[in-house]
Amino acid sequence: MNQSSFVSLLTDFGTKDYFVGAMKGALLSVNPQVQIIDITHEIPPHDIYAGAFQLLAAYRSFPAKTVHVAVVDPGVGSTRRPVLVASRDYFFVGPDNGLFSYVCEREEQVRVFHLTNEKYFRSTVSATFHGRDLFAPVAGAVSSGVAPEELGPEITDYIRLEPLAVRAVGAGQLEAAVIHVDRFGNCITSITRDDLTVEMLAKGARLVIRGREITSFRKFFAEDGTGASELFAVWGSAGFLEIAAFKASAARLLGIERGEPVLIISE
Amino acid sequence: MNQSSFVSLLTDFGTKDYFVGAMKGALLSVNPQVQIIDITHEIPPHDIYAGAFQLLAAYRSFPAKTVHVAVVDPGVGSTRRPVLVASRDYFFVGPDNGLFSYVCEREEQVRVFHLTNEKYFRSTVSATFHGRDLFAPVAGAVSSGVAPEELGPEITDYIRLEPLAVRAVGAGQLEAAVIHVDRFGNCITSITRDDLTVEMLAKGARLVIRGREITSFRKFFAEDGTGASELFAVWGSAGFLEIAAFKASAARLLGIERGEPVLIISE
Amino acid sequence: MNQSSFVSLLTDFGTKDYFVGAMKGALLSVNPQVQIIDITHEIPPHDIYAGAFQLLAAYRSFPAKTVHVAVVDPGVGSTRRPVLVASRDYFFVGPDNGLFSYVCEREEQVRVFHLTNEKYFRSTVSATFHGRDLFAPVAGAVSSGVAPEELGPEITDYIRLEPLAVRAVGAGQLEAAVIHVDRFGNCITSITRDDLTVEMLAKGARLVIRGREITSFRKFFAEDGTGASELFAVWGSAGFLEIAAFKASAARLLGIERGEPVLIISE
Repeated sequence: MNQSSFVSLLTDFGTKDYFVGAMKGALLSVNPQVQIIDITHEIPPHDIYAGAFQLLAAYRSFPAKTVHVAVVDPGVGSTRRPVLVASRDYFFVGPDNGLFSYVCEREEQVRVFHLTNEKYFRSTVSATFHGRDLFAPVAGAVSSGVAPEELGPEITDYIRLEPLAVRAVGAGQLEAAVIHVDRFGNCITSITRDDLTVEMLAKGARLVIRGREITSFRKFFAEDGTGASELFAVWGSAGFLEIAAFKASAARLLGIERGEPVLIISE
Repeated sequence: MNQSSFVSLLTDFGTKDYFVGAMKGALLSVNPQVQIIDITHEIPPHDIYAGAFQLLAAYRSFPAKTVHVAVVDPGVGSTRRPVLVASRDYFFVGPDNGLFSYVCEREEQVRVFHLTNEKYFRSTVSATFHGRDLFAPVAGAVSSGVAPEELGPEITDYIRLEPLAVRAVGAGQLEAAVIHVDRFGNCITSITRDDLTVEMLAKGARLVIRGREITSFRKFFAEDGTGASELFAVWGSAGFLEIAAFKASAARLLGIERGEPVLIISE
Repeated sequence: MNQSSFVSLLTDFGTKDYFVGAMKGALLSVNPQVQIIDITHEIPPHDIYAGAFQLLAAYRSFPAKTVHVAVVDPGVGSTRRPVLVASRDYFFVGPDNGLFSYVCEREEQVRVFHLTNEKYFRSTVSATFHGRDLFAPVAGAVSSGVAPEELGPEITDYIRLEPLAVRAVGAGQLEAAVIHVDRFGNCITSITRDDLTVEMLAKGARLVIRGREITSFRKFFAEDGTGASELFAVWGSAGFLEIAAFKASAARLLGIERGEPVLIISE
């Protein structure tokens, strides 16, 4: 048995409707012992990339064996498959549309199962609300210790998003992108410590975004915080380089949104 | 004894103030064993109809004996009565202003009690925050197994909203209304499968809303999803017919809000 | 041992990012037994005064020994100290920047500890997310019964905000301020029942705000609620005098924001 005490939820359902409450009720109807924790329900509607990033940033903070349920699901009711991802340390339940790509790249011993065993679904499954009728009950079952093999056949052709990565675009130039803008206006880029090393920084590597050069690299937001509108880079809590401004929105100062290209110039 | 493990909350308190946290603290002070689940706190301020609909859409997803606390309460402090609704399967706690109308229509063995026994209230009850001072402590008591009869006298003259229903407006014409617009812009109507039957659909029944004819009936959102802006109807997860558009807001496309009339034309 | 069953959270993290979920995961990783309750995550970014007020308004509704974690932390990563405040009845964990000022004024047997024992932090502490890496694990430890003295040295020079108070500005005139505007547009002032007594009211004391006289004092919002736009004063649920309007936003009617001065005229 492989029981879990915790189920996390990440959706694009928002919080003004009954959707999240109904999912939780359905989950507790199957496993009344589990504790449910919200990651966020404010993923922009149908934005699989945003969901995949937020899940990536949050999931490792949870206790081992947590069941992470993620539902950003524009294809609900169609032929897109419902899946369970089981890794060495965690479970993930949701639609097979790339939502779990980023975590699959990082987890070990990943196995993916197509959820076909209707015994673990709600007695009647609506065509529009699999969060309540399929994913929540299955998460209840998984957290109760039901084995993945019991839920459906293993598959290997699950959907993968293009990996978060930088690419060479010229001599000494790498192109990355802003992959998320957070509440504070910090711009999280796809750059990791492997892409922009201590050695590169020592030799004067710099960033260019929307025509602006970023040459200030800080340890934390408030360091040397004299000019509020000065842009700087800082290693963020999700493991990526962020472009920030002290007590101000870097996104607004730059006039940018997610997807904006960022150049690393290291020659 | 009739203990409950779960209490759900539905309010118009929003989430930017301390209101919901204070309610939960007050509830756990009475019954530390209970698990609290939010349905939503984003009911528009004082909008009893919206609260009644969201509660209707969510409550049956919860385990039996859940205590549903709903507070949309413009009359707080006045002579409006605080009530407990006890049905065969659930409990409901909140103000007597129609919030529980729609669930009362659907539940069996409904009994309503006027909450008068101050022993189960907070030691001092403010005139402006019965959520914290009256409804939360009473929900704590109910979930602990206190009998409804202990909380106050049974009443029968509780407030009822006009039922969600369609009405005949001409030969082969029924008038319904949009009763909710959800986060995705889907327009939930008051039309049920009893109002618009399989037979009527087979004979070519259609909808008219804001001068537009809806003749496309789908099983799920992504079905034949070629033209993103095409409007269609789909049976929604709350049991009502919804007017939707694939990956687009039907409400915005139609330029409508809750209350908009919808005609069923079946001749 | 001094175990706690409950941890409350109050932050300026918002709910669209993974921040709150990650904090909860980190907390449950240390103490899987604890139940976590949100007060709010919608404190305006970096607004320590708003955080201090909301915490003040909520904390006493929780069971004794609750660990209140509050993170509004523009100085994260800098030399500002992380602290534990232990009073007779509650614990508070967060940055030493004044967030706990208002509760410290009201609690008994207040002792403040500088959190220096890294044994109770996450194994690697980021410079930008102490909510997840320091405050959540410490709250897990405190709720598990770890003694305050174990976490770091006691300090007495912790940061204090200017107290919420009225001040004399002329014969029979006191000046207060609007300290919060809530979701409904009610304007919470810094005036308590000690500042505006029953005797003063009996003698005709009145308020002046933005050039408008308020002479109507009500027991609850719906009292004599005939003219929706009429402004009145009412004792609010947080213990302060509020300026309100029935089913309308007093803040919008007055055109004011937090910080607006309010005069009590009692001669």
